[in-house]
Amino acid sequence: MTYRYYYEDCPPGAEMELAPHTVTAEEIIDFASQFDPVPFHLDEEAGKASFLGGLAASGWHVCSLAMRMICDSYLLESASLGSPGIKECKWLAPVLAGDTLRGKVIVEGARTSASRPGLGLLELRCELYNQNDRQVLMFRNTGMMATRGAA
Amino acid sequence: MTYRYYYEDCPPGAEMELAPHTVTAEEIIDFASQFDPVPFHLDEEAGKASFLGGLAASGWHVCSLAMRMICDSYLLESASLGSPGIKECKWLAPVLAGDTLRGKVIVEGARTSASRPGLGLLELRCELYNQNDRQVLMFRNTGMMATRGAA
Repeated sequence: MTYRYYYEDCPPGAEMELAPHTVTAEEIIDFASQFDPVPFHLDEEAGKASFLGGLAASGWHVCSLAMRMICDSYLLESASLGSPGIKECKWLAPVLAGDTLRGKVIVEGARTSASRPGLGLLELRCELYNQNDRQVLMFRNTGMMATRGAA
Repeated sequence: MTYRYYYEDCPPGAEMELAPHTVTAEEIIDFASQFDPVPFHLDEEAGKASFLGGLAASGWHVCSLAMRMICDSYLLESASLGSPGIKECKWLAPVLAGDTLRGKVIVEGARTSASRPGLGLLELRCELYNQNDRQVLMFRNTGMMATRGAA
């Protein structure tokens, strides 16, 4: 199997643009019903009455949407080996029904593993913005990706 | 509206046990199809062939399952006002189809907001374990919760 992107294709400073996604009320309610069933994620009126100002997506839903945007934009064409976790994640503004999200992943650092030859470790920062250019999400994580030679 | 739990009910050192949840292959595939459609989250054979060792839940799915366990265990009965983000999150071991997750949330710190009277800020650590007592998830976050007087 060969991929389009390997560790070597993601040098520090590289930016991957993410395909936009418009969030519907149905998606917000469906996710919240399964995973985060609090009133302001389930009901428009409860959302309006809350500090979020409207029917707002669960923070975990926003992260999951970012993951999907990342998959669709480059990850499924890459030699990705997953991630051990998240270093920091900030939900900076509510994501409301009807919002269109766009964003990017920025490579902040890159090194190969000393203990596992062929394993690249990418320090990544993901940023999502809404249609008003307000940033709604930031997270940083380490992405593991095979080197071109190893894969 | 009154709640069972307010900021004052969550002093440092308090631990909230989470109701167990058994993860099915269908749930793993359903989540991954929507948000993280990589082979080792979608297909048993691909999972077995990967470093994860079987059909494994997306890390974001594991976080979302933790959120649901938290909701069912205490959050829906609390004066919670959400969270601004996650400080650290580690996916420590794969969550495989059939695994039964259990866990707890530990209050590591608590203070009231200087700028918003009636707002409590809880420093929380969530830990999930599988049926073999292996830890699969850790995350730390700040939880916002109204004080008893303010709510």
